[in-house]
Amino acid sequence: MTVKPPTPILDRVAGPADLKGMSQTDLTLLARDLREEVISVVAQTGGHLGSSLGVVELTVALHAVFNTPFDKLVWDVSHQCYPHKILTGRRDRMHTLRQGGGLAGFCKRTESEYDAFGAGHSSTSISAALGFAVGRDMGQPTGDAIAVIGDGSISAGMAYEALNNAGHEKRRLFVILNDNEMSIAPPVGAMSKYLSGLYHETPLGKLKDMAEDFEAALPGPIREGARRARQLVTGFPGGGTLFEELGFDYIGPIDGHDMGQLLTVLRAARARASGPVLIHVCTVKGKGYKPAESSADRGHGVAKFDVASGAQKKSSSNAPSYTKVFGQTLTDEAARDAKIVGVTAAMPSGTGLDILQDRFPKRVFDVGIAEQHAVTFAGGMAASGLKPFVAIYSTFLQRGYDQIVHDVVLQKLPVRFCVDRAGLVGADGSTHAGAFDVAFLSNLPGMVVMGAGDEAELRHMVATAAAYDEGPISFRYPRGEGMGVEMPERGQILEIGKGRVVREGSKVALLSFGAPLVDCLTAADALEARGVSVTVADARFAKPLDTDLIARLAKEHEALITVEHGAEGGFGALVLHWLARTGRLDRGLAIRTMTLPDAFIEQGSPAEMYAEAQLTAQDIAATALQALGVAPGQFGQASA
Amino acid sequence: MTVKPPTPILDRVAGPADLKGMSQTDLTLLARDLREEVISVVAQTGGHLGSSLGVVELTVALHAVFNTPFDKLVWDVSHQCYPHKILTGRRDRMHTLRQGGGLAGFCKRTESEYDAFGAGHSSTSISAALGFAVGRDMGQPTGDAIAVIGDGSISAGMAYEALNNAGHEKRRLFVILNDNEMSIAPPVGAMSKYLSGLYHETPLGKLKDMAEDFEAALPGPIREGARRARQLVTGFPGGGTLFEELGFDYIGPIDGHDMGQLLTVLRAARARASGPVLIHVCTVKGKGYKPAESSADRGHGVAKFDVASGAQKKSSSNAPSYTKVFGQTLTDEAARDAKIVGVTAAMPSGTGLDILQDRFPKRVFDVGIAEQHAVTFAGGMAASGLKPFVAIYSTFLQRGYDQIVHDVVLQKLPVRFCVDRAGLVGADGSTHAGAFDVAFLSNLPGMVVMGAGDEAELRHMVATAAAYDEGPISFRYPRGEGMGVEMPERGQILEIGKGRVVREGSKVALLSFGAPLVDCLTAADALEARGVSVTVADARFAKPLDTDLIARLAKEHEALITVEHGAEGGFGALVLHWLARTGRLDRGLAIRTMTLPDAFIEQGSPAEMYAEAQLTAQDIAATALQALGVAPGQFGQASA
Repeated sequence: MTVKPPTPILDRVAGPADLKGMSQTDLTLLARDLREEVISVVAQTGGHLGSSLGVVELTVALHAVFNTPFDKLVWDVSHQCYPHKILTGRRDRMHTLRQGGGLAGFCKRTESEYDAFGAGHSSTSISAALGFAVGRDMGQPTGDAIAVIGDGSISAGMAYEALNNAGHEKRRLFVILNDNEMSIAPPVGAMSKYLSGLYHETPLGKLKDMAEDFEAALPGPIREGARRARQLVTGFPGGGTLFEELGFDYIGPIDGHDMGQLLTVLRAARARASGPVLIHVCTVKGKGYKPAESSADRGHGVAKFDVASGAQKKSSSNAPSYTKVFGQTLTDEAARDAKIVGVTAAMPSGTGLDILQDRFPKRVFDVGIAEQHAVTFAGGMAASGLKPFVAIYSTFLQRGYDQIVHDVVLQKLPVRFCVDRAGLVGADGSTHAGAFDVAFLSNLPGMVVMGAGDEAELRHMVATAAAYDEGPISFRYPRGEGMGVEMPERGQILEIGKGRVVREGSKVALLSFGAPLVDCLTAADALEARGVSVTVADARFAKPLDTDLIARLAKEHEALITVEHGAEGGFGALVLHWLARTGRLDRGLAIRTMTLPDAFIEQGSPAEMYAEAQLTAQDIAATALQALGVAPGQFGQASA
Repeated sequence: MTVKPPTPILDRVAGPADLKGMSQTDLTLLARDLREEVISVVAQTGGHLGSSLGVVELTVALHAVFNTPFDKLVWDVSHQCYPHKILTGRRDRMHTLRQGGGLAGFCKRTESEYDAFGAGHSSTSISAALGFAVGRDMGQPTGDAIAVIGDGSISAGMAYEALNNAGHEKRRLFVILNDNEMSIAPPVGAMSKYLSGLYHETPLGKLKDMAEDFEAALPGPIREGARRARQLVTGFPGGGTLFEELGFDYIGPIDGHDMGQLLTVLRAARARASGPVLIHVCTVKGKGYKPAESSADRGHGVAKFDVASGAQKKSSSNAPSYTKVFGQTLTDEAARDAKIVGVTAAMPSGTGLDILQDRFPKRVFDVGIAEQHAVTFAGGMAASGLKPFVAIYSTFLQRGYDQIVHDVVLQKLPVRFCVDRAGLVGADGSTHAGAFDVAFLSNLPGMVVMGAGDEAELRHMVATAAAYDEGPISFRYPRGEGMGVEMPERGQILEIGKGRVVREGSKVALLSFGAPLVDCLTAADALEARGVSVTVADARFAKPLDTDLIARLAKEHEALITVEHGAEGGFGALVLHWLARTGRLDRGLAIRTMTLPDAFIEQGSPAEMYAEAQLTAQDIAATALQALGVAPGQFGQASA
């Protein structure tokens, strides 16, 4: 496929209002232009290509039929929002996508009135849309509410809760099920076309019966295809669909790349719905761009790429990623200990558990987008005597918080939590920040909380977690590649609650938890260059605290600075609590606890984000000097 | 019904092993004795009577058929565990139920090897049981896994996630659906009996087909009854059940009070199941005790009572409960502001939202056991311009943590969180402790966090939350009755981030957040009596902090003590972070942050629990003296 420059029809669109008078032919052409624009933009920026390409026609049709932004369009996860952004006045800024100061990679209320509800995590859209529907029914100035949710997201418990409640509420509400797991076989397309035709003249409620009649009347093989389609989605080949049982009218499946079908069905639904309606739309992830369609992940998340070939411009890395070190180390440990199993919530490759899965397929459990279940399931396995490693990104682990407290920690079950993507994560921005795990894990009684200072430390921590069987234990590590340190053949088992001194000095102590270790060392160099003698310690544990180490650092230095890539209330807070409790603050201690600031940091490179968070090596050095009572300008005058 | 003293058959049971050789007749008699024992025990202790009475026969049958504790019996929520506790060696301690040092009101792994997995929160049992099933299949020394879950609990998202995953895993697993919403009409019982008969000779997989054939062959009215029963449970009158679609074999409905049916079905299922099986058992909550059966809540949670009359010995209260003050105040505010709505997750009466519901039925949304959805649904309503008040107990709000972060706080949506049962809660013990909300809410950027010092303050905070529209806001208040303070006609709108000085002194400052205010005042009396001049301040806000107040307290006193009924990492931590950041610790500050200890506190009276937590007025006074450098024995020597 060759990509042409944007053609006039997209140029004629300043916003969704311009779609209202367009013919179906023009809207089809617009979709073609839009697809090319998405490809051309993401080639420059990288991003969620596949999911955005899959909803090009759907996006056009939704904006053509519904009255956005008065009607509220809620994109689930919202990584598929690029065509939506282009159509809603952000085309000229698309080249800034996912970059510092640029457009977010997700929907964001502060970015556009067309972004009715932001997201990043999955399965929230139906709940939010139902909220808008209630608001409308109670007189708020808002129109229809439309949730667009993928087949992966709709299977999560939260979406089920929302469907259940929406069915019960019986309010007018549209849920578009964007089903891209299933390619549309011609027979289904045929049925959908037939169905679409029916919409012109048929009350909505009768359509499903007619669909069934129609299905039954089809010739054998085609009928089989239609049935299979229905079954794949609904799980219910014979009777009603799950959605119907929950109180929804079900319409579908519809070919999500057929503008005529989409327009007809959406218009009919909009004209006639009185209660909740689920419209099942089948799309192809990566649609219309061969390199995406033919790749294993359908171009889900891509780096910058060459449009003609699809070749991605991935930067060569100097060190293995933390994720890979985790996956490889866990696999090594698992080879030695048959009790080790892995649990992932729909992200085997993102978490590195695919490495374990390749080696021991039966020992990795992918439970789907179901973090709550993942945690308690692991609790059950631990209670049976297994050694479960639950690998979930920091930000998604928030979904399993109650299960961590109630099912695991309260019962002292030895579940191992592998907290990937800890700290700021770059282009995915604030929705994906791993900001709170240190705080929400460290204040739980009996939880062991580790943070890896480099990839070798991560290897030690995996080994430590494998060996530790007395209760719950966690270890966090950042996104991206490691420091390039020499890797030990095998991880050492660390002494629980003991940190290490990495560099001995005398005047100021920098106590790092996890990833900031490298910044502390850089800060130490800068301080030493100015004559300030620095001790750098790696706490390794936020819980239990190495109180001997902290006591010594506090006693032997003029200032103590803790540094962590987490929000307040975590490691530094526990250090302060302990110092206060033991009276060590009574007679004075120049202590500073450097944490993520009390604000959400927008996307950018990790370096930009940490600069904004004031957590760079320079910030650490400046804080140390401030704590020592040295004015920034007096740098040279501070001496050990 | 007259209650007889325990009869010989229960006396012959030291543990489940004694049930193995018993005839069906003896087991039926045993159930009769057990029921009387439960009534007699709960009459003395109070507790979850109704749910325990409902599962008497089921408990006997499960222990008779399965090989506990090798087989793992997991009770969901586990408030129905009293018969189980009596049968598993704890009969002689049942009089200590829910009391300090006594038996817990829930299952608890540390209490008995028969308590395979503890609970208190709902919908966790299938996940845990699946974990045991995996453990067994991977060679751990454990047998069958059986989850017993109620019809309310199985509708939560987490249970759906677990069913979904269990169906996918296809492992041998038993889920008993204890359905007590539906009374069993004779025809259904008839069908169940028929079914039970079939089990003796029929492979399990064929039973459901036969059940359908049987159903079709029944005479009209009986067939209708059977269909209704099936439909009520499964939602699927015609085709398969939801459970079947998820991969389970479905058996039922069974009369949960018919020992013969239970034994036959459980034995057949145990003998023949190869994959996941759902056994649908219908029970009557409060079964066999007229006063429970005939009460509105079927004796769900009762105080001590008179066995003959069922009259509960509820203590008379001197002040309205916090819950009632909340409900009444919110209703008053709602009468003045049509945008105010309430959201509860299946607890309208527990949260006091029933008061609002009575007045404005359409403005309270009970979403079922679905905290995740509740929070994001409220986020959607807030985005539409409504003023949602989400009333969820502190401990259950943990279930919506990610939604608070991702859907509400990140988007600065003005959702009001009404955090009832904050702090230690008494007889429900550690699973229900409201220990972590201050910490997990206070470290979120832009969240306003209030704590009520008494019931008048709660009224102010409801008014403040109603008026505050700039972002998310929360207020916490404890379980139980208020202080008996004079109540303002209407709540005042508090200035955000401003505390108040309640008592002026000079030597030590006690800074309370929320409920400990009364203890701080008592401590102040004790300290003043010993010549120590005390300032008592009510912070009102954990976030934003009243930094002017804190600065003044720190500056003008020799010691500063913060007190909160929450874990470390919350209010006190934020105070410490701020003091450190501003250099106020550099030259010395005798500060102590009193929080819940880093341990789970077992059930008891709230007073006992706070004593164990070292958070009494005495503890506060002692901490103040220690911070002042006064030894406990030197009490009299401290002088202002």
